[in-house]
Amino acid sequence: MERKARKVYLRMKTLKEAQDIWTDRFKATRTGIEEIEVTEALNRVTASPVFARRSVPHYHGAAMDGYAVDAALTFGASDVKPLRLKVGSEAFPVDTGDPLPDGTNAVIMIEHVFPIKEDEIEIRSPAYPWQHVRKVGEDIVAGELILPERHLLKPADLACLLAAGIKTVKVYRKPLVWIQPTGSELVPPSKADLLKPGDIIEFNGTMIKAMVEECNALGILQEIVPDEKDAISEAVKKALKSEVDLLIINAGSSAGSEDYTAQIVDELGRVLVHGVTMMPGKPVVLGEIDGKPVVGLPGYPVSALLAFDQFVRPLLWQLQGIWPPAKKYVDAVVGRKIASKLGLDEFVRVIVGRVADRLVAMPIQRGAGVITSLTRADGIVVVSQEKEGFRDGETVKVELLRPEYSVDWNLLMIGSHDNTIDVLASELKRADSRIRLVSSNVGSLGGLMALRRGLAHLAGSHLLNTADGSYNFSYVEQYLKGIPVRLIELAKRQQGFIVQKGNPKNIRDVKDLARGDVTFINRQGGAGTRILLDYELEKAGIQPESIKGYDQEEYTHMAVAVAVVSGRADAGMGIFAAARALELDFVPVTEERYDLIIREDMWEDRKIRTLLDIVSSDRFRGIVRDLGGYDPSNSGTVRGIWNGTEWVERRD
Amino acid sequence: MERKARKVYLRMKTLKEAQDIWTDRFKATRTGIEEIEVTEALNRVTASPVFARRSVPHYHGAAMDGYAVDAALTFGASDVKPLRLKVGSEAFPVDTGDPLPDGTNAVIMIEHVFPIKEDEIEIRSPAYPWQHVRKVGEDIVAGELILPERHLLKPADLACLLAAGIKTVKVYRKPLVWIQPTGSELVPPSKADLLKPGDIIEFNGTMIKAMVEECNALGILQEIVPDEKDAISEAVKKALKSEVDLLIINAGSSAGSEDYTAQIVDELGRVLVHGVTMMPGKPVVLGEIDGKPVVGLPGYPVSALLAFDQFVRPLLWQLQGIWPPAKKYVDAVVGRKIASKLGLDEFVRVIVGRVADRLVAMPIQRGAGVITSLTRADGIVVVSQEKEGFRDGETVKVELLRPEYSVDWNLLMIGSHDNTIDVLASELKRADSRIRLVSSNVGSLGGLMALRRGLAHLAGSHLLNTADGSYNFSYVEQYLKGIPVRLIELAKRQQGFIVQKGNPKNIRDVKDLARGDVTFINRQGGAGTRILLDYELEKAGIQPESIKGYDQEEYTHMAVAVAVVSGRADAGMGIFAAARALELDFVPVTEERYDLIIREDMWEDRKIRTLLDIVSSDRFRGIVRDLGGYDPSNSGTVRGIWNGTEWVERRD
Repeated sequence: MERKARKVYLRMKTLKEAQDIWTDRFKATRTGIEEIEVTEALNRVTASPVFARRSVPHYHGAAMDGYAVDAALTFGASDVKPLRLKVGSEAFPVDTGDPLPDGTNAVIMIEHVFPIKEDEIEIRSPAYPWQHVRKVGEDIVAGELILPERHLLKPADLACLLAAGIKTVKVYRKPLVWIQPTGSELVPPSKADLLKPGDIIEFNGTMIKAMVEECNALGILQEIVPDEKDAISEAVKKALKSEVDLLIINAGSSAGSEDYTAQIVDELGRVLVHGVTMMPGKPVVLGEIDGKPVVGLPGYPVSALLAFDQFVRPLLWQLQGIWPPAKKYVDAVVGRKIASKLGLDEFVRVIVGRVADRLVAMPIQRGAGVITSLTRADGIVVVSQEKEGFRDGETVKVELLRPEYSVDWNLLMIGSHDNTIDVLASELKRADSRIRLVSSNVGSLGGLMALRRGLAHLAGSHLLNTADGSYNFSYVEQYLKGIPVRLIELAKRQQGFIVQKGNPKNIRDVKDLARGDVTFINRQGGAGTRILLDYELEKAGIQPESIKGYDQEEYTHMAVAVAVVSGRADAGMGIFAAARALELDFVPVTEERYDLIIREDMWEDRKIRTLLDIVSSDRFRGIVRDLGGYDPSNSGTVRGIWNGTEWVERRD
Repeated sequence: MERKARKVYLRMKTLKEAQDIWTDRFKATRTGIEEIEVTEALNRVTASPVFARRSVPHYHGAAMDGYAVDAALTFGASDVKPLRLKVGSEAFPVDTGDPLPDGTNAVIMIEHVFPIKEDEIEIRSPAYPWQHVRKVGEDIVAGELILPERHLLKPADLACLLAAGIKTVKVYRKPLVWIQPTGSELVPPSKADLLKPGDIIEFNGTMIKAMVEECNALGILQEIVPDEKDAISEAVKKALKSEVDLLIINAGSSAGSEDYTAQIVDELGRVLVHGVTMMPGKPVVLGEIDGKPVVGLPGYPVSALLAFDQFVRPLLWQLQGIWPPAKKYVDAVVGRKIASKLGLDEFVRVIVGRVADRLVAMPIQRGAGVITSLTRADGIVVVSQEKEGFRDGETVKVELLRPEYSVDWNLLMIGSHDNTIDVLASELKRADSRIRLVSSNVGSLGGLMALRRGLAHLAGSHLLNTADGSYNFSYVEQYLKGIPVRLIELAKRQQGFIVQKGNPKNIRDVKDLARGDVTFINRQGGAGTRILLDYELEKAGIQPESIKGYDQEEYTHMAVAVAVVSGRADAGMGIFAAARALELDFVPVTEERYDLIIREDMWEDRKIRTLLDIVSSDRFRGIVRDLGGYDPSNSGTVRGIWNGTEWVERRD
């Protein structure tokens, strides 16, 4: 493996600039025109105006059940002077839709006719010409324009064309898209059983082909070409000799040493854009060769999808002569602060839940290579380049990626993290695979704040009242005034010291921390674990200043464990699971209660019902017990019912 | 032809009741399950939860470019005590995505490495285990649930499945729909060139098949069966012996003498609903035979489409295990009053235009048999059964039937009707087939009111100021305070007396109306034509009371002509075109100016520019002149520029 020189993007464009250059270059480009059967023309776009070949109706027809007459015969009729007509010569029985007999030009409704004899009727008012008659051409006149050009054909349009005597229609050909996967590490999905380390399954091609199909176009997924400039160049030339309307190369669009797309497009044609200030999706190549559009999409799946959406989707519709269908947007409040860099349009994937009739968008904080961030996401929030992000509680527009009803299966949880939450999430999916427990870790107090602001369905909390040793009650009283909730015990868990393997410093209890030869690593102020430590120190009569490292802070259990494993500290306070994850030792200090705090208005919700069934089950308790460091004996016990003002029930 | 007994609906259901009965009956019914290639699974619905077959990543890989190391080796490194590592035995160069060499568990970023020699590097801080490493299963863990059941598969989902080593997926079969057209008057589209009077092209079947396809299902359009009970019954039995999931019979769903659908369903199975209080779409049959859903759709295309949308669309998605995709709604203000019957959910087709950044919905007032009402409609407004309609200016929800941008091609015109408007509309289409001039006839004054309220882009007006003989100016001053507009002359036109053919009463001028042997038919108070008559009478010194029939009123030019042709009156005032349409004679009385009054903010609009080019063209003038009764010499002349307060320009 050798180090290669890195290249840079020539000139990055903003998303808006890139879109304008791209749209403008191909605004007059269309696919060819073909004439197809009307019966096969759903969702195709007319390439020319369509004129009726026949009138609809094509005959004068009765618009009511009754008798057809020549109106002139009836002009004298009145209540004073009724008129009689001979059936069969002067009046003819007709049903709705029947053609008018020759010589007649009006229909008298059956309700206005008085039968006299088998072959005679009487009327008491005149008919005027063409009354109750659907005249020839009333709906469509032969020769009339019935559909404009560049019209997207929907089911009723097909009916209208057939009614007007039209059997074939000129439409734009479906754009043909050549999809070229490149990459020496790629393995086709069919060989997924034989992967070596470093191999990657070529799944982008299938994703891109499906996106092409969603644009009413045809994608042809090609064989993988390795990361060799000549091989890719050959593939591009071959593509352009075929009848394709658009060529997509994936990946190699970046500015790295093995990224050849921009070079090849530059040599064979013209690069219009290389690099866009969007994230993910920055390394995109937009160009043309022989007048045909060529797109280099990034290799990371999230980047590929977003760049496709911004540049390929609009082009594919443009090639068919129309604008892309509108996206579906909803308003939502941000459930957790979204930070973003200035100068980049950032596309943040979010999970959306419905809390008290408002939609809440929770950002998924993961990279462009994480394919599950797309399947998990319900929508996308764009932080435009002139913004540094959104505050929690701020209202944003969310582009919905899936049907809106599906967000009602999401259960939004926020607060302190605990490993049993992962068990709970997986057990919920097992009970009903559509239920998703989405948890966001902002600490116990942060969770209570989010509950108060209507940003979550439930919160996880282990807040100790150092005055009486109780958990959560006093904090609910203080922070959830006016917000009815119920407290459910999820589990009791051990907090203790995370120490080096073998506990070489022989740390047994809090007093050992002040021994002088022990370096400690602390949690941040306000963390439940920090409150707990301070409570334990106070009980033991130990001054914080006497502990070496007390002022060194970390923000998570895992970060504390990492400080210990890397030798920066001898001990830190945290949960058993963190110690076990890094194969460290654990010295139990105390047991604390971890509660779920659930909005009262969710109590009868199907997802919460399922959750409550799970936490009370033997199966769940068994799994949690096996994690080590937990006591789930009372999991599911209602610890409190808070009506917003006082405790209706409280069980310490 | 013989009269047959009419039947009645058994018990009509409300739309809500019918939907509940229908949804409830088949809520647990699904199509079969099939296992298909993931690469072909776009828009299919998972029939069971999907679990990962392999982890993603499936190897520990570098998440950064740099050197892979065993973290434990690095723990002592610091600025004070730099550490050197041998390349190739202690540190290994890696690029992002490369697998970690055996024995390493961390990556040091290239930026934090100081090269010493070809085979030696120096570091100044420790690496902790797993830093900058994408660990096995970081994205997906083998065995993990990656997609729930009843999940609609989108492009990114396919990528995720492939990444997780899954090649085939269990999905619900696409529902198979048997579409049975019935009707002795029906002729297949292929024989559209040979129509006899009374024949109707069978276009509903193609429309229904296309709607079925839009629900992700497969429609099989059958041969036409005549209106004979036994023949239809046989077809139904044949259908049910096949593998269909749903049978649609079209038409024969009403309660008429030749409507057999309900009878047949009743005999072979069970009728759940017959007749729904919706309009159009009332005569619908919902039933089941052998546990399979059977739907009788009405014969009128609009009724068929709406009934399909309410009952078949949701069912087809339900059979696949999910809810139907959400419809696209927009808010719009009603441009013209919509009246509707209590006790019926009425589906009113509307054309939508954008006036000053608001959407305006203009109802199309046409029957269920008019196929063009569907192709013309941009959307549907539902007037629920407990409402009598909507006032103009009221805000309503519009279900959009086409992409929102297409409404920007609509030009909304309101006011007095004139035949040259039809010419203008057709010439606009000719110039750009996407431009639609949508006119609504509410009289000249009504048009000014609509302009004032922002409900139209332009109005047609011929309002005479009887004080000075000028047209429109004084009315604009009075009614459009604060609303800048421009007045364009469309044409001058003759108003005169519509009289019997040959003018038997020898009517020559207004004085003849008072002769005593002449019966007159008048227009309603406030009509431009009424104002004109009264002005002419006053000039001639004739008392209205002296005219027989002066108090008999009609609302349109055509209604006046009908009164004359049917002998109710000898003369009425109106335009030449109305006389000609009914082959009556016409006695010119005076010439009046008909103006287009256009919102100032539309002046530079592309559609209005096109319109102005047309009305000034020789071609337009020629066509208008040929209509007879018009003088288009000054068509397109700007008659006035009104800034909302005063005339910037005024040319009488």
